[in-house]
Amino acid sequence: MTIKISNKPFDPSQYQGTNDSLTLAISTDGSPEYDVTYEIKARCGRAVRLAKGEHLTITNPSGKQVCDLWTFAFPNLAEFMSMEHSHTALSSTIPKVGDTLVTNARNPILTFAHDSSPGVHDTVIAACDLARYQQLGCEEYHDNCSDNLRMALAAIGLKALVVPTPFNIWMNTPVANGGKILWQTPVSSAGDNVVFRAEQDCIAVMSACPQDLTPINGLNQSPSGLTFLVNHDK
Amino acid sequence: MTIKISNKPFDPSQYQGTNDSLTLAISTDGSPEYDVTYEIKARCGRAVRLAKGEHLTITNPSGKQVCDLWTFAFPNLAEFMSMEHSHTALSSTIPKVGDTLVTNARNPILTFAHDSSPGVHDTVIAACDLARYQQLGCEEYHDNCSDNLRMALAAIGLKALVVPTPFNIWMNTPVANGGKILWQTPVSSAGDNVVFRAEQDCIAVMSACPQDLTPINGLNQSPSGLTFLVNHDK
Repeated sequence: MTIKISNKPFDPSQYQGTNDSLTLAISTDGSPEYDVTYEIKARCGRAVRLAKGEHLTITNPSGKQVCDLWTFAFPNLAEFMSMEHSHTALSSTIPKVGDTLVTNARNPILTFAHDSSPGVHDTVIAACDLARYQQLGCEEYHDNCSDNLRMALAAIGLKALVVPTPFNIWMNTPVANGGKILWQTPVSSAGDNVVFRAEQDCIAVMSACPQDLTPINGLNQSPSGLTFLVNHDK
Repeated sequence: MTIKISNKPFDPSQYQGTNDSLTLAISTDGSPEYDVTYEIKARCGRAVRLAKGEHLTITNPSGKQVCDLWTFAFPNLAEFMSMEHSHTALSSTIPKVGDTLVTNARNPILTFAHDSSPGVHDTVIAACDLARYQQLGCEEYHDNCSDNLRMALAAIGLKALVVPTPFNIWMNTPVANGGKILWQTPVSSAGDNVVFRAEQDCIAVMSACPQDLTPINGLNQSPSGLTFLVNHDK
């Protein structure tokens, strides 16, 4: 697909190309069936509705795949999980088990309930987008996490104002002393999972990051899929 | 002023109280006169229009005052300077002289042209807001950087969709190994200044952070003012 360069002003709510994220909703409004394992296809995104108290488990079959995670308050998507507000709440850029992530209104939205991996994640890097791949040399459309978010929401009839900073689960981009960001490969293992408890009714969106031009999803630069399921409160 | 708790859904574009930021525009549309020193009153914010190539100098008379800085593309404020996209562009959380900050569309917007201070700044912490002061125990309205941004824009007839993560100039909150954020006092000196060159037509908004419940603006917890001026390209 060739990209038509738009002369319209930049609109952070609009996807700039399409993939299966636009049609693969898990249900009309994103409501899940309990204990059903849903696939997130490689390079795609999917949205799921969570009621307060429900648990979302995200699994990394390859062990080397980064998951971009966003969460929006429902029905008011103008309130969303905010990494920068969570930094203040947690005095840390790397959430760990027991931490509660908050929104841009500083309300609790997700508690990090379990992590089978070594706990290496990122919260300071923007989601990839078409502009990022164009800067890396792409001349045609490239799947990207920002569009996956926009499409996964559109697939259940929703739209967000902007693309918030994602919780980049399993992304290994530590901040060294002096602020230098290192770009490393995930240290997670095949089958690792993370679990979040919803602290309010919300929409979680996950993207299996399609970055294949850097080693962010492993040295073989071959993005893979993820899975998720929703449980009752335990 | 007693806060009326609103039952309306959270709107990130709306201020939740007022101060002089709402009436102290430097001109009707924020256009500056060249080489005129404008004051940013303690605890308040002000907006200024910059044309591509113009230089903005921000000065810290006390040396201990943090400046929250945002920049929006003009006239499309949906595109704005993004710390998380700049992290990718710079591979660093601490911009330094020579670095170009980018927008959420990954376009250059400001180049960091000069810094007389030791270069200690922050880009990972959200702007303070009323919710933050309520969590710190305030029961009445407290001036805050998020509202200062919203009011400074309103004072020149503009509005932004959301409050982006600010460039927190002179804020000393380094990220240690393992992601821990330390809350320290500024290391800048009285009279220190920073200079930015506009890489596109834009609106810069500065807030003299009113945080007086923590030592973020110095150990005496007494927020002070800032000044700025605009020059031709040099």
